[in-house]
Amino acid sequence: MSKGLPARQDMEKERETLQAWKERVGQELDRVVAFWMEHSHDQEHGGFFTCLGREGRVYDDLKYVWLQGRQVWMYCRLYRTFERFRHAQLLDAAKAGGEFLLRYARVAPPGKKCAFVLTRDGRPVKVQRTIFSECFYTMAMNELWRATGEVRYQTEAVEMMDQIVHWVQEDASGLGRPQLQGAPAAEPMAVPMMLLNLVEQLGEADEELAGKYAELGDWCARRILQHVQRDGQAVLENVSEGGHTLEAGWFLLRHCIRKGDPELRAHVVDKFLLLPFHSGWDPDHGGLFYFQDADNFCPTQLEWAMKLWWPHSEAMIAFLMGYSDSGDPVLLRLFYQVAEYTFRQFRDPEYGEWFGYLSREGKVALSIKGGPFKGCFHVPRCLAMCEEMLGALLSRPAPAPTPACRGAE
Amino acid sequence: MSKGLPARQDMEKERETLQAWKERVGQELDRVVAFWMEHSHDQEHGGFFTCLGREGRVYDDLKYVWLQGRQVWMYCRLYRTFERFRHAQLLDAAKAGGEFLLRYARVAPPGKKCAFVLTRDGRPVKVQRTIFSECFYTMAMNELWRATGEVRYQTEAVEMMDQIVHWVQEDASGLGRPQLQGAPAAEPMAVPMMLLNLVEQLGEADEELAGKYAELGDWCARRILQHVQRDGQAVLENVSEGGHTLEAGWFLLRHCIRKGDPELRAHVVDKFLLLPFHSGWDPDHGGLFYFQDADNFCPTQLEWAMKLWWPHSEAMIAFLMGYSDSGDPVLLRLFYQVAEYTFRQFRDPEYGEWFGYLSREGKVALSIKGGPFKGCFHVPRCLAMCEEMLGALLSRPAPAPTPACRGAE
Repeated sequence: MSKGLPARQDMEKERETLQAWKERVGQELDRVVAFWMEHSHDQEHGGFFTCLGREGRVYDDLKYVWLQGRQVWMYCRLYRTFERFRHAQLLDAAKAGGEFLLRYARVAPPGKKCAFVLTRDGRPVKVQRTIFSECFYTMAMNELWRATGEVRYQTEAVEMMDQIVHWVQEDASGLGRPQLQGAPAAEPMAVPMMLLNLVEQLGEADEELAGKYAELGDWCARRILQHVQRDGQAVLENVSEGGHTLEAGWFLLRHCIRKGDPELRAHVVDKFLLLPFHSGWDPDHGGLFYFQDADNFCPTQLEWAMKLWWPHSEAMIAFLMGYSDSGDPVLLRLFYQVAEYTFRQFRDPEYGEWFGYLSREGKVALSIKGGPFKGCFHVPRCLAMCEEMLGALLSRPAPAPTPACRGAE
Repeated sequence: MSKGLPARQDMEKERETLQAWKERVGQELDRVVAFWMEHSHDQEHGGFFTCLGREGRVYDDLKYVWLQGRQVWMYCRLYRTFERFRHAQLLDAAKAGGEFLLRYARVAPPGKKCAFVLTRDGRPVKVQRTIFSECFYTMAMNELWRATGEVRYQTEAVEMMDQIVHWVQEDASGLGRPQLQGAPAAEPMAVPMMLLNLVEQLGEADEELAGKYAELGDWCARRILQHVQRDGQAVLENVSEGGHTLEAGWFLLRHCIRKGDPELRAHVVDKFLLLPFHSGWDPDHGGLFYFQDADNFCPTQLEWAMKLWWPHSEAMIAFLMGYSDSGDPVLLRLFYQVAEYTFRQFRDPEYGEWFGYLSREGKVALSIKGGPFKGCFHVPRCLAMCEEMLGALLSRPAPAPTPACRGAE
């Protein structure tokens, strides 16, 4: 008993820290959602402005399809899974965004290819020869169906998913990218990552679709694992983005949980969580570098040494998920380390939302809150998922103390 | 006479400064050319490695077509116009690069569309839906003809030029970019800039081609001028690159000299030289910012506040050309200011060549000497042109002193 007491105190302190972070994260989620609700809604055409300055002012009214789809997804997800966000204003904005996408995202309907960016009133400005606009379109439609129950959204989602799978696994010619002799054999890691994300999205509480895409999920996991093991001849992939790896890490963790594969989980924690953290954390100024070269060459990307918001939000998710799943206290420490840095450096206590782009030293390099690649997505997704995971950890029954080891510490 | 003496002293001091810069620039040109000669030649396949680390080591053997064409052009130009570079090693490397381009640059011959990047042995990796690979191909072929006298190079150059003009002025569908309703009406400023450069290249000492492209040159000048006056609806062009504007500035200056248009010249000096300098020069740390937003918004480009080598080399050319042409001492002062910063911050006295990417504060951010966008071009072109212009200034007969104003200073 005399040794059990400090262990119990440790655990109570641990719970207090978890509880404090749960509150901090929840309050931040409220502030972030409020920022986008106040500044980003286009009342005239539907959809969202995402090019917002520090205080929320629109500096460009272009509509990036990735970010339209992501915001619809985020709003529906919040509406569906958080009691306090279950209000009509959020759902109405999501529906208006969804209708905007339905009407304008596709460049030449009934063809499924979507634009990358549209004018405010929906005319296509630019088309990318990739699958990503279509993937975020699919995520938006699937969540809209879940939030509203309207089947037409789900029909859209499944039809687009089938098209995407066809482009990736059978015939990419519909994307408009020429087949080139010297092109790398493997697709970029972002492709199987994105697809794995969609497999989970569409399969959630849906046995039929989960079954339909089960094999695809395995294929995605294999492809992602190959990238990290440098099996492929994907020379262009030698430069790895730590943030991407961490994001792939938590996609794979969820895959392992679904499959019940503890061996793979250990590998994922090792290669996708701990490795990018240890090679990517800046020992001088804190924070995660954006790019790291596998062979320690200097990356050619100008932003390699900058600190970007999304690798940090992905790292928070990955470490907290890793800890929730494995109970390994090392992962909880890393969550705290990243979260402390992130809240201190990226949050804007004055106008809300987070800055996206800091210098290596942590100074704000770009004062914008949104742009062509930053919208209402990574930050609220991170906060919402962390709030949920912290809540789940706190609601677990306290385990029996293990006096010997912990008490002796 | 008593007042004429200090004026003469001023002028002599001025000549000494010009002479010192001419020597500094000439020696630097020798070092830079030596760097590329030593590290970039692919003896096996022809063409050039341009992905070179600080000390010259090849970190990637991909061959970017822009940079292949530019290096061929640069070598021929040096061979043709500088006595000390008229040696076989330089010309042989240029010819090997030219043959590599002739054999591999086009994706599907006899079609004229060129790849953006090739493997070391010439297989296409990526194609851009723009005209730039083809423009640098044209520049290379025209210079090869001038340096070797072999007509087949010139035939290639003129045929490619005709194709480019067709894409720009008549029908862009061959570039593979879909026509989109929301796309900006005007082409990016880089297109008329690049074409104006080609008009000058092909028309040099060639009355027939100069005549053939005279109207095209006027069209390019008008289009470039429109961009700066913000006449077009080119919303995407609100963010201006100071370096691009300065480069356009000296292209236009040469156009004015050819046309003999002093009124346009004054406008160009104002809007394309002085304006970008005054809005783009960093008052705190020196050097030119990379991007500036026309409306003072924060640019979304991550590198906006970085210092890149090429806006500085273009500024050196522009100010020295402006001074040579107008005699305005303000422009000479600006040349010195930019050149001092550039030599101090970008040069690598240890391994040769210049660093390309500095932080806002002037620290080396990327240690590479070459990459996908930096090759043997901007630095040696700047040094060669400045050496020539400084030589021309020094060989002018000294003007009669104007005692009153200068002596009283």
